[in-house]
Amino acid sequence: MPDYASLSPAQARALIREGKIDFPTTGMCAGYAQGNLVVLPKALAWDFLLFCQRNPKSCPLLEVADAGSRTFPQFGAGSDIARDIPRYRVYEHGVMTGEYTDVSAFFDDPSRELVSFLIGCSFSFESALLEAGIPVRQIEEGVNVPMYNTNIPCTPAGVFSGNMVVSMRPIPHALVPAAAAITAQMPRVHGMPVQIGFPEAIGISDLAHPDYGDAVTIREGEVPVFWPCGVTPQNVLMQSKPAFAITHAPGHMFITDVKNAVLKL
Amino acid sequence: MPDYASLSPAQARALIREGKIDFPTTGMCAGYAQGNLVVLPKALAWDFLLFCQRNPKSCPLLEVADAGSRTFPQFGAGSDIARDIPRYRVYEHGVMTGEYTDVSAFFDDPSRELVSFLIGCSFSFESALLEAGIPVRQIEEGVNVPMYNTNIPCTPAGVFSGNMVVSMRPIPHALVPAAAAITAQMPRVHGMPVQIGFPEAIGISDLAHPDYGDAVTIREGEVPVFWPCGVTPQNVLMQSKPAFAITHAPGHMFITDVKNAVLKL
Repeated sequence: MPDYASLSPAQARALIREGKIDFPTTGMCAGYAQGNLVVLPKALAWDFLLFCQRNPKSCPLLEVADAGSRTFPQFGAGSDIARDIPRYRVYEHGVMTGEYTDVSAFFDDPSRELVSFLIGCSFSFESALLEAGIPVRQIEEGVNVPMYNTNIPCTPAGVFSGNMVVSMRPIPHALVPAAAAITAQMPRVHGMPVQIGFPEAIGISDLAHPDYGDAVTIREGEVPVFWPCGVTPQNVLMQSKPAFAITHAPGHMFITDVKNAVLKL
Repeated sequence: MPDYASLSPAQARALIREGKIDFPTTGMCAGYAQGNLVVLPKALAWDFLLFCQRNPKSCPLLEVADAGSRTFPQFGAGSDIARDIPRYRVYEHGVMTGEYTDVSAFFDDPSRELVSFLIGCSFSFESALLEAGIPVRQIEEGVNVPMYNTNIPCTPAGVFSGNMVVSMRPIPHALVPAAAAITAQMPRVHGMPVQIGFPEAIGISDLAHPDYGDAVTIREGEVPVFWPCGVTPQNVLMQSKPAFAITHAPGHMFITDVKNAVLKL
């Protein structure tokens, strides 16, 4: 088995393209940022780009490809957006109609003019937390991060509106300032927490039952800390039931050529 | 004479709208961010928005209004984009065809679907430098900041391409680290320097003859420090000779409701 953590992003993307990596990308290419993918027809792209611009904490845009293009030149030189992610989901009118390992056919269809959006992912700041000795519970417990709907309205844009979704990580109280400071340095991957310690203030009543992902243990002396979550744009998008959309499948991310540390600049 | 520094942004915008402030906004509403304005027909807006997204250091977008809208709800609640700037410039096919104190008529024309872009301005980080005791030479000398063309290519988007324009401030060498650190905290208003001390490395051969603005004195023991400049988007825009565009006149900015300190978050 290759040491996936030590692969270069270009190597990992090539293995994915060849079908040799068909599982989640967590932990691959240590130090490099991974991103969420959203692909939309050009007709919806303006509204979605505006939505991201107006809600940078939950929807931090890393790169937007040219209409019809299959590459992200800034974040993945030589990448093929249609084949470099291990698993894609296709949605029609808000309903998932299939999972694919290659979505070239959709891009190749000349009647579609698809625009690809690369959105920052919390993997980047979790790696910074771990390096600073701050525990990330869902990684310890081998589950998905717990995510919750909130009462925090996003700023609407065109057809897109909705509330922010947040992820929660329980942090020992003595480490909460460092967790806030470290993530605040990384606004391109969600940045500082949106709430510390008062879930009810943002409309969350039951931490044991997240709206997405899995519940995690909150230990004595730990404080629930909430960050804006990349599920927000997907959620808002799906609520508008676009005629057509492609996203990555959860955990199957686009691996970029850009180091997490560079995202702080 | 009113104390312009202590006005609230809403008060200042109202005085501008009433024609009682018809001069540059430098120094007004202390602590609040001011922004650059670019207004374009919808047909060019996608390319320009992509250009800004791809070049966030020289083109840090603060807000994009809805097509046809005359207000920035996030940065200027209740604002009127067409009347709240003391002086506007109108360009047709890349040529300035007039200066105006009110551009309502252009927005009111139903055949135009104008999109307004608010772009971060170095006034915000200069205020942070001054608070930290770091001198800002062109303010001391009462002139415009010196700006230079560089050999640093911007990432193109659609019809827009060109090189970065930088502003230069001479900083005493002992204060250069602080100047870099303070501005790095403010990526929404150009962020960290792009070059420190080696103008020739970015294609600048003669500091005494800036391409825009005025030359300033560089004293013994001072280092020229270069930041990405908000003239970049205007320059790139004008090179494409759009059929129609409105900008603010230099120094006559949009005064926002958002404090400079908040732009660090």
